[in-house]
Amino acid sequence: MPLVVHKYGGSSVADVEKIRNVAKRVVQTKLDGNDVIVVVSAMGKTTNNLIALANEITAAPPEREMDMLLATGEQVTIALLAMAIHAMGHRAVSMTGPQVGILTDGSHSRARVTHVRDDRVREELAEGNVVIVAGFQGTTIDGEITTLGRGGSDTTAVAIAVALNADVCDIFTDVDGVYTADPRVVKNARRLDVITYEEMLELASLGAKVLHSRSVELAWKYRIPLRVRSTFTEDEGTLVVHESMIEDMERVVVSGVTADKNQAKVSLRDVPDKPGIAAQVFRAISDAGINIDMIIQNVGHDGNTDLSFTVPRDDLRKTLAIGRDICDKIGATKIEPAENIAKVSAVGIGMKSHSGIAARMFETFAHAGINIHMISTSEIKISCVIDLEHADRAVQLLHDQFQLGEVAAAS
Amino acid sequence: MPLVVHKYGGSSVADVEKIRNVAKRVVQTKLDGNDVIVVVSAMGKTTNNLIALANEITAAPPEREMDMLLATGEQVTIALLAMAIHAMGHRAVSMTGPQVGILTDGSHSRARVTHVRDDRVREELAEGNVVIVAGFQGTTIDGEITTLGRGGSDTTAVAIAVALNADVCDIFTDVDGVYTADPRVVKNARRLDVITYEEMLELASLGAKVLHSRSVELAWKYRIPLRVRSTFTEDEGTLVVHESMIEDMERVVVSGVTADKNQAKVSLRDVPDKPGIAAQVFRAISDAGINIDMIIQNVGHDGNTDLSFTVPRDDLRKTLAIGRDICDKIGATKIEPAENIAKVSAVGIGMKSHSGIAARMFETFAHAGINIHMISTSEIKISCVIDLEHADRAVQLLHDQFQLGEVAAAS
Repeated sequence: MPLVVHKYGGSSVADVEKIRNVAKRVVQTKLDGNDVIVVVSAMGKTTNNLIALANEITAAPPEREMDMLLATGEQVTIALLAMAIHAMGHRAVSMTGPQVGILTDGSHSRARVTHVRDDRVREELAEGNVVIVAGFQGTTIDGEITTLGRGGSDTTAVAIAVALNADVCDIFTDVDGVYTADPRVVKNARRLDVITYEEMLELASLGAKVLHSRSVELAWKYRIPLRVRSTFTEDEGTLVVHESMIEDMERVVVSGVTADKNQAKVSLRDVPDKPGIAAQVFRAISDAGINIDMIIQNVGHDGNTDLSFTVPRDDLRKTLAIGRDICDKIGATKIEPAENIAKVSAVGIGMKSHSGIAARMFETFAHAGINIHMISTSEIKISCVIDLEHADRAVQLLHDQFQLGEVAAAS
Repeated sequence: MPLVVHKYGGSSVADVEKIRNVAKRVVQTKLDGNDVIVVVSAMGKTTNNLIALANEITAAPPEREMDMLLATGEQVTIALLAMAIHAMGHRAVSMTGPQVGILTDGSHSRARVTHVRDDRVREELAEGNVVIVAGFQGTTIDGEITTLGRGGSDTTAVAIAVALNADVCDIFTDVDGVYTADPRVVKNARRLDVITYEEMLELASLGAKVLHSRSVELAWKYRIPLRVRSTFTEDEGTLVVHESMIEDMERVVVSGVTADKNQAKVSLRDVPDKPGIAAQVFRAISDAGINIDMIIQNVGHDGNTDLSFTVPRDDLRKTLAIGRDICDKIGATKIEPAENIAKVSAVGIGMKSHSGIAARMFETFAHAGINIHMISTSEIKISCVIDLEHADRAVQLLHDQFQLGEVAAAS
């Protein structure tokens, strides 16, 4: 019998009525002849409410106790969903992360899954149960409750799909798939039927908030097909698979265009152009827990150079404080922030074998009078930092340029 | 170092401010030189809200899933209390029932504790932590989450006190101790400084809703001193101990007077007076899960007899339905319910060695024109079923008769 993992996010189980709808969908999948494991998040805003409650107690709650607190959210959902399935006359059993045996390291609030036991879930499936698992949570081997951090329920779903060798892992959400661009920005954005893990990963990390990167990495590593689908429609959604599974791969060069508007740019001026300086700068920033994204070092002149990089906008103030210290140490003249920027990217597995994509992107911007501040490329992605005010227009222009709105996208 | 167990009920941890107050009390107890284990219930009306949520899904949720759901309530409280203690600069660690190793049988929603592991709690105490334990919940050896039913947090507290051989178990509640009578009914009711387990047990089962019977039985069996105290005052409350620990035992004959207004009386008329009839009647009622309290069989005449008994008023309808069937089978003429009754009881360890208490009770009622419908006695208790309308007056009269309002109560 095929084994299917469903994952439903918080908005899909936000109230009793929505939980009933999820129950119907799960039961139908079971009646269609599948074994079903369901992973759920906490209902609606439950997690945020619990965080607010903790913050009423103290501004800095210990992470271990936060995990203890937050893990209750998913536990409520699994019990209610199991009840809803029982009420429909079908068998279901709820299990917390610790009960399943989702083992993690001890990094509270951002634990990594180290192993998932399959025996307990298999027993319940063998007895004809739908198995409902609390997402986002796990346990150390010492029995400490941990949580997996942002997007943790996606990771739970994929980790379980891996452990039980599921045929597919369906991630149900409030959008009906992965689009060629944000449909709110680009009117003719088109839903992709299929996309590779690699592209999905670039899109996820670029701010297309559909799937969490960790879950995509995990699915990729073990080649578990993912499907991004809407909880509220019957659409098939977007299938995320290995590139070897996509037949007409070479036809599609660019799969999607995204804009990340949550970055800020920082430039260090007149940095002495000698070995070890860049290392010194980025070690200090990285030690502060700040994720640096793009880095550009301009060609030097007079023994000096300019060094620019992007960081999450929320970390800008902290970065500037650290940066000023470093300027003094290394003898740079000044540090300049730029908040109103966006990173616009084109992503496509076909770029591996097609050249000229970058040139077309730069030309598009040039014709539209959009200035490019920074450029970075990978095998399947080209990103440009431009002024924030041009971001939406830039996405639309690229979407048109690469003809992503057409059903059989060709470049 | 002395080891103290504190238990705080739902009204004591109903909001963030109350949780902070509990944290202060716990920290003070620690600073006074004790190791401290704290058992807490769910905040305020959390449990009722969760039950309402489940009932929105289905009128008959599976008990296993109810336990899964309800166990989250206490887990929220332990995390928040641990945070509050941390915020005061002290060490605390929260533990769920399963984490402690509170092992129970598999009777979901009313599980019995079979064993409490002491090693994990001892480790945390040894590291200088206040250990905060979720009340009301446990786990089967197979890892199923169970709850202990009404009053379960009291049971958790005492079971942990037993397992760790605590010096005392303080039950903090919204009353400041055990009284000679309900202070809302009897103006000069007096708080008892000390009472025996046996008396407490009679009082608990008689409707003095201070401590749950199971927790008193457990404390009695292992001779763990209990203290009923107010969360909101510094009073010492009432100490519940073995009778061998009370020196001037013989002076006190009656410790308290209570009225249980939640009973109903059922009479079977003209029951054939032959062996096996009573067994037949009470087996059928007991098989329906109904707790029979008092039973009276009058002297027979003409080969027939009358059989009366009391049941919880909520079970009256069910009892009557069963009773009618039985009447037909055994040839009794009819079944008569009486709803408006109360059971008034006097309880006192001193009755074991004093006679004449029953007579004084009956005389008191006789002088006041209160008719007695049924009488039942034990070694330390005399109960009379009377009309509900006289209940409060009867309690006050007995309270006066046995001079319970005076500091050194003598009979």
